[in-house]
Amino acid sequence: MIKPLLFLVTLGLLAMSAAKPTRVVFFGDSITQAGVNPGGYIDRLRKMVPADQFELIGAGIGGNKIYDLFLRMDEDVLAKQPDVVVVWVGVNDVWHKASYGTGTDPDKFVKFYEAVVKKLKAANARVILCTPAAIGEKTDFSNQQDGDLNQYSQLIRDLAKRQNLPLVDLRKAFLEYNLKNNPENKEKGVLTTDRVHLNDAGNQLVAEQMKAILMTAGK
Amino acid sequence: MIKPLLFLVTLGLLAMSAAKPTRVVFFGDSITQAGVNPGGYIDRLRKMVPADQFELIGAGIGGNKIYDLFLRMDEDVLAKQPDVVVVWVGVNDVWHKASYGTGTDPDKFVKFYEAVVKKLKAANARVILCTPAAIGEKTDFSNQQDGDLNQYSQLIRDLAKRQNLPLVDLRKAFLEYNLKNNPENKEKGVLTTDRVHLNDAGNQLVAEQMKAILMTAGK
Amino acid sequence: MIKPLLFLVTLGLLAMSAAKPTRVVFFGDSITQAGVNPGGYIDRLRKMVPADQFELIGAGIGGNKIYDLFLRMDEDVLAKQPDVVVVWVGVNDVWHKASYGTGTDPDKFVKFYEAVVKKLKAANARVILCTPAAIGEKTDFSNQQDGDLNQYSQLIRDLAKRQNLPLVDLRKAFLEYNLKNNPENKEKGVLTTDRVHLNDAGNQLVAEQMKAILMTAGK
Amino acid sequence: MIKPLLFLVTLGLLAMSAAKPTRVVFFGDSITQAGVNPGGYIDRLRKMVPADQFELIGAGIGGNKIYDLFLRMDEDVLAKQPDVVVVWVGVNDVWHKASYGTGTDPDKFVKFYEAVVKKLKAANARVILCTPAAIGEKTDFSNQQDGDLNQYSQLIRDLAKRQNLPLVDLRKAFLEYNLKNNPENKEKGVLTTDRVHLNDAGNQLVAEQMKAILMTAGK
Repeated sequence: MIKPLLFLVTLGLLAMSAAKPTRVVFFGDSITQAGVNPGGYIDRLRKMVPADQFELIGAGIGGNKIYDLFLRMDEDVLAKQPDVVVVWVGVNDVWHKASYGTGTDPDKFVKFYEAVVKKLKAANARVILCTPAAIGEKTDFSNQQDGDLNQYSQLIRDLAKRQNLPLVDLRKAFLEYNLKNNPENKEKGVLTTDRVHLNDAGNQLVAEQMKAILMTAGK
Repeated sequence: MIKPLLFLVTLGLLAMSAAKPTRVVFFGDSITQAGVNPGGYIDRLRKMVPADQFELIGAGIGGNKIYDLFLRMDEDVLAKQPDVVVVWVGVNDVWHKASYGTGTDPDKFVKFYEAVVKKLKAANARVILCTPAAIGEKTDFSNQQDGDLNQYSQLIRDLAKRQNLPLVDLRKAFLEYNLKNNPENKEKGVLTTDRVHLNDAGNQLVAEQMKAILMTAGK
Repeated sequence: MIKPLLFLVTLGLLAMSAAKPTRVVFFGDSITQAGVNPGGYIDRLRKMVPADQFELIGAGIGGNKIYDLFLRMDEDVLAKQPDVVVVWVGVNDVWHKASYGTGTDPDKFVKFYEAVVKKLKAANARVILCTPAAIGEKTDFSNQQDGDLNQYSQLIRDLAKRQNLPLVDLRKAFLEYNLKNNPENKEKGVLTTDRVHLNDAGNQLVAEQMKAILMTAGK
Repeated sequence: MIKPLLFLVTLGLLAMSAAKPTRVVFFGDSITQAGVNPGGYIDRLRKMVPADQFELIGAGIGGNKIYDLFLRMDEDVLAKQPDVVVVWVGVNDVWHKASYGTGTDPDKFVKFYEAVVKKLKAANARVILCTPAAIGEKTDFSNQQDGDLNQYSQLIRDLAKRQNLPLVDLRKAFLEYNLKNNPENKEKGVLTTDRVHLNDAGNQLVAEQMKAILMTAGK
C-alpha cells in the first residue's frame, strides 16, 4: 500500500511528466453536479491547475448517497478510466433521515464507502476522500444535523487513515472558515446559498482545498 | 430465460432425481433468522418436504434491508453453493423509515433487489421472490405502513414478472388470512406476535406457502 | 347534547330565519388557505349557497397540524365569533412524520382535536369535522401514507360519533371518486395537482360535500 | 416582573419562614419519573434540602414532550397547588423525530413552552426552567442529536432570559462534566446508563444543580 506522501509524489510526477494529463473524476452529489457550472468549484479548479497536466471531469448527481455512487460507478466513473477519483458524499446520507426517512445507517455508510474504494482501487484509480461540508452554517453547534455530520465525517477520516488515502477535510475547513467569518451565527449565506449548496465563497474555498491536494506533490 | 413453470419442473425433477438433495437457502431478515428455531417456518418446512430431496438452510439476520442482503451475499449465500435461493425482505426497508430514518427509497430498493437477483443468477442459483407480509394485522387498511408495504410488494411483483421468477406473495396471503380470521381488527396476535414476527399460525402459513412453491412442480 | 339531525335542523333554521347570515369559518391547513382563491372550494361554495344565509370565512394556514389550530384558534377563529366552524386538518399531522420528523402521534392528535372542539363548543360555535382527503391518489392502496391517513380518518370518525358531531368524510369521498375515475392508478391529477392540493375537480368535489352538510337541514 | 435574584430571595425567605414548606413539583419526562426512585435525583434532593422547608413532588411521565406537559398540567401539577414548578423537558421533542417521526418543531416547542409557563404563572407558581441534558455522551460533538439538543437548549435559555426565569442549564453541566470525565469519548456510562437516563453520577449531578437553585437565596 502506498503512503499518502508517495501517492502525492506519484500523482505529481505523473501529472508533470505524462504526455496525457491526469484524468480526475469528481464523484458526488448535487454539490458536485453544480461544480461544473460557471463559477462552480470544478470550473474554478480548471483555471487554477495546469490544463496540460489535469483533465477534470464532473460526475455528480443530485440527491446521491454513498450507495447511489456504488450503484452507478461502473458507467459514470470507471467507464471514463480515471487516474484519480475524488469522492465527496455524505450530506444526503444524513439529511435524508429527516427529509425522507431514507438516510444511511452509519455502519452501512462505511461498508458501501469501502466497497466504492475497493472497486476504484481494483480499477487502478487513486482515490481521494472528502468529508461532507455542512448542512447549516451556524457556529454555535446547533444546526440540526451537526452531530450526525460530525459522526459521518469521523467515519470518513477513520477510513482514510485505515486505508492510507488522502483526505480533503471540508467539514473541518468549513467549520474553521465559519468560526472566523460568521460572527452573527447565520445559518446560510457565508459559504452556502441554502445551508448546503455552495455560493461563490464556498466554491472558491472548495477549489482551493482540492487544488492543494492535487498539486502539493507536484511542487 | 426459463419460464416459472419450466423452472418449477426443473426444480422438481432436480429435487426428485438428484442423488444430492436440492440445497435451498432462505435469505432474509429477523423473520427468517427465527425461522430455523423449533416451530419456525423453516423448521416446519423440513418436516413437510422429503428430507432426501431438500436441504433447507436459514440465512436470516435481524434488521436486514435489501442492501444488507447485497452486502453479505457472497459469504452468507453464495459460499454455500445453493441450488435455490428464497429472498424474503422488505419489512425493514419500510419500517426503518419511521423508526430510524434509514429506510430504503423505492427506486433503490428495486436496484439493489435486481443486483441481488443478477448475482444469484450468475452463480447459477435459481431465485424465488417473496413479498413482505405485514407490519400490523389490522384489516381496515389503517396499519401505519400499509401503503408502503403495498407499494414495495408491488415493486417485487413487477420484478418477478419482468424477470419471470417464481413469487411467494406473502403480503397477499397474510391479507387474505386476516380478512377471514381477524374480524376484530386486531393489530397483532393472528399471524404475528408483535405485528411483524410470526406466531405458530404465521409460521405454519408461511411454511405452507413456501412448500407449495418448492413442491408444485414435483407432483 | 344535540343530535346531528337536530344540529342540522337548527343550523338550517338559523340560516333561513336569521337577519344576520350564519357565519361559517373554515379552519384548516394549506388546502383551506387556497380555498378562498378564485376557483377554490370556499370561493365555489360562496356561489353555491344563498349569500344572505351564509357568510363564509377562510382560516387556513399552510403546514398546520391539529395543535397549530389549537394554538391559534383564539385569534383566528373565536375572535370572529363564528356560528359554525368547519375543522379540516390531518394531512400534515401524517405527512410531517416523513418530511420533517415532526408529525403528530395518534393519541395526541385525538387529545388536541378534542381540546379544539371543547373550546369551540364553549364559545357556542357548532362544529363540523372533516377527514383528511389524500396524500397521493393511487387506487391500489399503495400511497405511502395511506395506512396512516386511514388511521387518523378513523380517529376523526370515532370522535364525531362520540361527540355527535356532523362529519364530512372527504377521505371516503376522495377514495370513491378515484376508484371510479382513476383507472390508471395515477398518483395525482385526478382531484389534486400534487397528490395533496386540490385541482378544479377536487375543489368542486369538496365544495359539493361541504354544501351538502351546510344545506341539508335547510331543505 | 420579578428579577431572578429577587425570585430566589423570595423563594428562600418563603422556604425559611413558612410554617408550611415550599411545595416544589418536578414536571417532566421519564428522567423525572425515575427521579423519585431510591437514588433518583429527587430522592437525593430530599436528603440534601431541609425537610421542613421543602416538599418535593415528582410529576414525570415517560415519553413526554412539551405539549404532553401542556395537556396534563391541570391534573398533574396545578391540582397540587405548587409554590414552585421545575420544568425539565426536551429530550423526547428532539429524539422522537428520528424514532417515531413525531418530534416537535422548534417554533411549536417555544409556543407550547410559553403556554406552560403562562399557565403556571397565572396559578401563582414560580417557574424554574431546565435544558435537556443529553442524548449520548460522546464529547467530540458527534452524538446524532447534538445539534438539535443545542438548538432546543438555546431556545429554552432565550425563553428564560426573555421572561426573567431561573434556569438550570443541565445541557451545559453535562457537557462540562463529560469533557472532564469522559476522555475515551464513550457514548454512555458516564452520567447516563443508556445515553439518556441517569446513572448514580448523573442523578447526583442533577440533584446538586437543582439544589443550588433551590437553596442559593436561602443562604
